[in-house]
Amino acid sequence: MAPIALLTDFGLLDPYVGTMKGVLAGLAPGVAVLDVTHGVPPQDVRVGALFLDAAWPHFPVGTVFVCVVDPGVGTRRRPIVVRAAGRLFVGPDNGLLGLLPDAEVRQITAPWGNPSPSRTFHGRDLFAPVAARLATGSPFEDVGPLVEDPVRVVLPLPVDGRGEVLYVDHYGNAVTNLPGADEGVVRIRGRVAPVVHTYAAATPGEAVALTGSTGRLEIAVRDGHAARELGLAPGTSVSWEPT
Amino acid sequence: MAPIALLTDFGLLDPYVGTMKGVLAGLAPGVAVLDVTHGVPPQDVRVGALFLDAAWPHFPVGTVFVCVVDPGVGTRRRPIVVRAAGRLFVGPDNGLLGLLPDAEVRQITAPWGNPSPSRTFHGRDLFAPVAARLATGSPFEDVGPLVEDPVRVVLPLPVDGRGEVLYVDHYGNAVTNLPGADEGVVRIRGRVAPVVHTYAAATPGEAVALTGSTGRLEIAVRDGHAARELGLAPGTSVSWEPT
Amino acid sequence: MAPIALLTDFGLLDPYVGTMKGVLAGLAPGVAVLDVTHGVPPQDVRVGALFLDAAWPHFPVGTVFVCVVDPGVGTRRRPIVVRAAGRLFVGPDNGLLGLLPDAEVRQITAPWGNPSPSRTFHGRDLFAPVAARLATGSPFEDVGPLVEDPVRVVLPLPVDGRGEVLYVDHYGNAVTNLPGADEGVVRIRGRVAPVVHTYAAATPGEAVALTGSTGRLEIAVRDGHAARELGLAPGTSVSWEPT
Repeated sequence: MAPIALLTDFGLLDPYVGTMKGVLAGLAPGVAVLDVTHGVPPQDVRVGALFLDAAWPHFPVGTVFVCVVDPGVGTRRRPIVVRAAGRLFVGPDNGLLGLLPDAEVRQITAPWGNPSPSRTFHGRDLFAPVAARLATGSPFEDVGPLVEDPVRVVLPLPVDGRGEVLYVDHYGNAVTNLPGADEGVVRIRGRVAPVVHTYAAATPGEAVALTGSTGRLEIAVRDGHAARELGLAPGTSVSWEPT
Repeated sequence: MAPIALLTDFGLLDPYVGTMKGVLAGLAPGVAVLDVTHGVPPQDVRVGALFLDAAWPHFPVGTVFVCVVDPGVGTRRRPIVVRAAGRLFVGPDNGLLGLLPDAEVRQITAPWGNPSPSRTFHGRDLFAPVAARLATGSPFEDVGPLVEDPVRVVLPLPVDGRGEVLYVDHYGNAVTNLPGADEGVVRIRGRVAPVVHTYAAATPGEAVALTGSTGRLEIAVRDGHAARELGLAPGTSVSWEPT
Repeated sequence: MAPIALLTDFGLLDPYVGTMKGVLAGLAPGVAVLDVTHGVPPQDVRVGALFLDAAWPHFPVGTVFVCVVDPGVGTRRRPIVVRAAGRLFVGPDNGLLGLLPDAEVRQITAPWGNPSPSRTFHGRDLFAPVAARLATGSPFEDVGPLVEDPVRVVLPLPVDGRGEVLYVDHYGNAVTNLPGADEGVVRIRGRVAPVVHTYAAATPGEAVALTGSTGRLEIAVRDGHAARELGLAPGTSVSWEPT
């Protein structure tokens, strides 16, 4: 049986994620529940979409994802299920699921959630129960009517080798929207960072660029924290040029 | 088979939680182990009891909880198992399990733990082994003698609409001990926060109050961190009045 | 079936750990995947080895560990599998697996990984796939040739009761390389901390030493954060003497 995978901005300090797991354990006993991450910056729908984009291709076909970054919870934003590449994705229609390719989208109207949902925790009261139903065999077609105009997320595209930082990871590496490269140099905040192939190819303290695990150029500092040391944040301009 | 669920103040930096999972994997192979949270503030028994109170009703009947917030580890505080609402709860008798309703409590005297326990890690050496035994079929009655005077945790009760902040969550929302409300205003640190129904009903930067997922009033700032911006912490006074 | 257990320095903010779990769910469906910890300080191979040393004996025989603290990813450092004490350990040959006892070590040359691996994420592209193969029955002997000179990690040994802090845990307790003791005093940063048997034996705010769950002396402050309050960090000198 395929797993259920969770991606949220709930963090791991509060019992929110655990409560969703309790709901899933009750409604889909025996189904494996995996964490993609709960570290999406609070309410940052675009980074949530990017994290999902990085992770989902590595999960098996059939996986049901529950994705909750949901500043509009309790409003009229639609709850949806997306079918793409053989997986199902449950979440709000706010762009979080808006990077998925060739998606078929349905609005959740089936009465599968808690009949008395809270206004602030649809992860627990709606999205987890719907995922449990789908993971235990209820068909996608029963979710509700097709949605023709789901919210897309628009990523800034690089122009002529000029782009920007999308997010900063745990190591302080700044992931950009520039495509991976095997050579050349990157200019960022007045620094010139050569493109290298491994972190270890840099000298300690040196700023370098390399193709990260999602195929984008990343800025790193050997044995350091690039974002803090170079002053990088989402939106920082960056450019690449050949050597 | 019902799952084992873990709630501790261990955090996720050290290998403490992982070590407990290793013990459980050895003694209760095939039993699902779920994290409620490991983010209880260190040694904060009252917040641990509140987090458990928020989460346990959403776990299936039969779940065995291992709860460890245990500043008195190694002393004569009693190790106990509580049976309440069809679930079992293993942990120290210090109030952590003291909010559970209509509980039947037994002191752990059965020789189910590590015969040479460390003095500082009863989660690994006693509570996890006991939970594994219970989850794999050992009866509650075999745990040990009934406890007639378990330690209760006393929550501050609101008086005439005046209450206090209980804790601050990952989003910066301050959860109070005031009961949920559909209208009215909340006064806190000189600010007046209207009661709204959704986060999105506020204007960006506005302080509002709304009924959170545990049924209590929470103070939030739209697109912000209420606790930091308003100076809220556990114990901060708060009051509600009708409009 | 024995579980797969993960130990990394990836942290839990990014989707790196989740992506590895997706790979494992696809290649080893039905195998339990447990987190030892993902909180090893970034690129700190020695603390990673210490965390593994504290945790692995509590996991069942047959467990396959995936261990990734890997500043040399993409270079010629060898990928290895270690067999020790009935468990298997997959990771880089950089000392992370260098504390394991009586180990038999093989270099990974079997074509079990992603045929087009990224240069920066061998956890996803090599180590997780190899662990999945081993956990589902491929024999250790098929991994590749024996390694006679694996990298060991050298811990500082105490001399005449003088040692040092190895790391600081989530509670602020400083774990030293001094062996556990039942009595005596510890001198550290000009303070004298008596050896006690439980945290609760100290008065609030008092610095004490006690034998921690790995058998080493730890410095703690009752109801406080020893490392912050006493100025302790890895490498801080500490000494023990009898009373």
